[in-house]
Amino acid sequence: MRPVVEKLQQNGHEVVVIVPSTSLHMKPKEPQNYTVKVYPIPYAEEHLGVVLNSFINAHFVEQSVLNIIITMYQSILEISRLFFTNCKSLLHNKDMMQYLRESKFDVVFTDPVLMCGPIIAKYLSIPSIYFLRGMPCGMDFEATQCPNPPSYVPRLFLNNSDSMTFSQRVKNMLVHMLEFIYCKPLFAPFEELAYEIMQKKVTATEILSHGSVWLMRYDFVFDFPRPVMPNMVFIGGINCDQKKKLSQEFEAIVNASGEHGIIVFSLGSMVSEIPMKKAKEIAEALGSVPQTVLWRYTGEAPPNLPKNVKLVKWLPQNDLLAHPKTRAFITHGGSHGVYEGICNAVPMVLMPLFGDQMDNAKRVESRGAGVTLNILEMTSKDISAALKAVINDKKYKENIKRLSDLHLDRPIHPLDLAVHWVEFVMRHKGAPHLRPAAHDLNWIQYHSLDVIAFLLAVVLLSLFISVKCCLFCCRRCCFKKGRTRKPTKSKSH
Amino acid sequence: MRPVVEKLQQNGHEVVVIVPSTSLHMKPKEPQNYTVKVYPIPYAEEHLGVVLNSFINAHFVEQSVLNIIITMYQSILEISRLFFTNCKSLLHNKDMMQYLRESKFDVVFTDPVLMCGPIIAKYLSIPSIYFLRGMPCGMDFEATQCPNPPSYVPRLFLNNSDSMTFSQRVKNMLVHMLEFIYCKPLFAPFEELAYEIMQKKVTATEILSHGSVWLMRYDFVFDFPRPVMPNMVFIGGINCDQKKKLSQEFEAIVNASGEHGIIVFSLGSMVSEIPMKKAKEIAEALGSVPQTVLWRYTGEAPPNLPKNVKLVKWLPQNDLLAHPKTRAFITHGGSHGVYEGICNAVPMVLMPLFGDQMDNAKRVESRGAGVTLNILEMTSKDISAALKAVINDKKYKENIKRLSDLHLDRPIHPLDLAVHWVEFVMRHKGAPHLRPAAHDLNWIQYHSLDVIAFLLAVVLLSLFISVKCCLFCCRRCCFKKGRTRKPTKSKSH
Repeated sequence: MRPVVEKLQQNGHEVVVIVPSTSLHMKPKEPQNYTVKVYPIPYAEEHLGVVLNSFINAHFVEQSVLNIIITMYQSILEISRLFFTNCKSLLHNKDMMQYLRESKFDVVFTDPVLMCGPIIAKYLSIPSIYFLRGMPCGMDFEATQCPNPPSYVPRLFLNNSDSMTFSQRVKNMLVHMLEFIYCKPLFAPFEELAYEIMQKKVTATEILSHGSVWLMRYDFVFDFPRPVMPNMVFIGGINCDQKKKLSQEFEAIVNASGEHGIIVFSLGSMVSEIPMKKAKEIAEALGSVPQTVLWRYTGEAPPNLPKNVKLVKWLPQNDLLAHPKTRAFITHGGSHGVYEGICNAVPMVLMPLFGDQMDNAKRVESRGAGVTLNILEMTSKDISAALKAVINDKKYKENIKRLSDLHLDRPIHPLDLAVHWVEFVMRHKGAPHLRPAAHDLNWIQYHSLDVIAFLLAVVLLSLFISVKCCLFCCRRCCFKKGRTRKPTKSKSH
Repeated sequence: MRPVVEKLQQNGHEVVVIVPSTSLHMKPKEPQNYTVKVYPIPYAEEHLGVVLNSFINAHFVEQSVLNIIITMYQSILEISRLFFTNCKSLLHNKDMMQYLRESKFDVVFTDPVLMCGPIIAKYLSIPSIYFLRGMPCGMDFEATQCPNPPSYVPRLFLNNSDSMTFSQRVKNMLVHMLEFIYCKPLFAPFEELAYEIMQKKVTATEILSHGSVWLMRYDFVFDFPRPVMPNMVFIGGINCDQKKKLSQEFEAIVNASGEHGIIVFSLGSMVSEIPMKKAKEIAEALGSVPQTVLWRYTGEAPPNLPKNVKLVKWLPQNDLLAHPKTRAFITHGGSHGVYEGICNAVPMVLMPLFGDQMDNAKRVESRGAGVTLNILEMTSKDISAALKAVINDKKYKENIKRLSDLHLDRPIHPLDLAVHWVEFVMRHKGAPHLRPAAHDLNWIQYHSLDVIAFLLAVVLLSLFISVKCCLFCCRRCCFKKGRTRKPTKSKSH
């Protein structure tokens, strides 16, 4: 969201960023041009580190499919609880709430997955703009009244593409139907919190539907085409914009790589350490390719680290991917990284860990632009083979180049689009003209079940009446015949 | 479509426009920068005039609702027959077809309502871009696999808004369900024609679904928000761009109007004459306002024409509407005119005649930006009252100004957007990444009916088995009890 905020500030708007005292990405001491307001939360950076580490480590343990699902669900609940604690701290912070109320902001710009921005926007009746990659339980589609047919729109975390076999469609449908059950614990606490401050019952869907425009980090070059709504704006690849020149240190490494070039390797900022056994296997595989590997890793260096691998604590990922000497990108498949891979046309080896990473990896692989590895089962040989494939087999480079060309061929840059819509909502105090009338219908009305029942009743009633009439006529006929026959009979007697 | 074609030509593309020898709007002798190829069709301009006049006149006859529907349906069929004749002439024209085949065009740019462009594009395997206001029978939504819930998406020609009462929803649903029947005669001839040249059976939906990108003349400021698809691009108001300075003649009339300003009055280029009785009533009403009225009318002037009314054979509608002295716009409610009214913020008096004009009028009225009159029932008083309302009641001007502000506040001009997407399809030979996987599913699969049936069967089977098991256990229990009881009984005997 940072580039959007910076551009808004450049356009002369006064931007205030509300940050919890403990945060993974928002360090209040970083230099910035916008005002940052910090509110205290009841846990420290250490706790966040512990939660995140145990969350990450759980994904490196081999376990049954059922256990994986339970682990994943528990992780999501745990993260949701962190969000809830943050939100509660903010809403109960009287000074901060008074400041927000009195400042009369024109717009709330928020990622709705945190749920707190939408609650504040609805509570203070400020128009809101959402900026998101997606929401669990398809809440983004439910809250926008966007059709979401389970027959070809894969549900999250299922590893399905948009072209599913019958059994995949059954699984997709089951997950869709079970959302009612397993999504309750994710959103119920926020509904209670909203009730507490607004003093009226609101569902999570109602809270979220307050959003005027949804800036979705989607691009159909990468995401599967599906029905959308007029208040959704697609800004996938917004993060891939701001390229800087490489620092001397990195420039030197890249230049020293010779004709073979480099491989960029990062499992994202959340993964600080991986089990040593895995690290050794990865190191062994990296030694089997002639490229120089830049590996962003903060854990203990594996003892078998080959000479062509440089461990770094941080790397300018997008700038390195943009370098013409970059041959491949090893990534965990987070949407940021994948979009950077696409916009710089670098074929990928994907090692998805959790969340939407499996789905992202599936999307890249289904388009022939990368190879996905199972991080639990992969051997040193698998990694080596995957790397050699994406570097030497031309089709990967061709496919990612094609995706990149399509992705970059757009009438307006996603950053300008995002800024336009934020300013649009500020200028016009929302965007009610983009709100579909479906919000005013209940489930039965939306699906026309009342109308169908009525038409069926009419058809059945008219059928019933015509059958009754026929029977009545037949009976009269028979009766008449009977009556006319009887006397004849009696006469004949 | 002309501005798009002109811009494409300016961008260095070679554009060839294929025109039938008889056409309402395309006069081959007009000066233009692009190549025009004319193919002969078996009817002359006189015949087209007769058909159109009898079509228009039918809407000035007072008749029952049922008769109005039948008349409208017959008119649509008649126009569809004209399209069919044109298309047949083109497809049977060997020289022209050979020319099209050999020219290896990059893209077919066409209004799909004519059906001929889509057939040629599919036949010659050329990517296509559609430019449209809409299609009868919701074919645009069917061919794009776009959800179209009848509970809040009003069907064409029904005069419904997106917020419907129960009875309106019943009507909407009935029309939706009857589409299968009454739409057949519209598309069947084209399906046969396609079969004739392709030598394989294709439905109209399949032909249309070949379109890569659909440029829809929609803007949700005016049209009701509804589900859309990623390959739909919204370019409503594209016609409202090119403003020129008024000619001396019109400038003089406008300047002479004084403080009261002018009213622009046009019922569209298709209406050349209206019944004298109606014309007289209109003339009487126009005399009751102090504004100068510029009336585009080619029929016989009514004898009671007041002094403030100037009859003209043609007027620069958009340029006049853009003039600050323009107070109101009397229009038949064609989408072109309505968008010009919106972008120039001129309140409207709408006299819809046929087609989507009633729906357009409903949309303008439901937004408080105009007054709709029933052209059959309106009296001179009604017209006068409507005109005075939209000119003197500030809320109409305020509402149209608000719509206009929203409409014009866009990140990119619709013309640039349209040109971008045409060029995109040319550069990438289509846009298959925007094609939803729903195209590969049949109706049962799309609605997951097979999955639901399977899940139901599983549930019923497990219920059946558990009931059977229970019964079996119960019976065994009873039987045992019975057997243990029996001997006791016999002993006691």
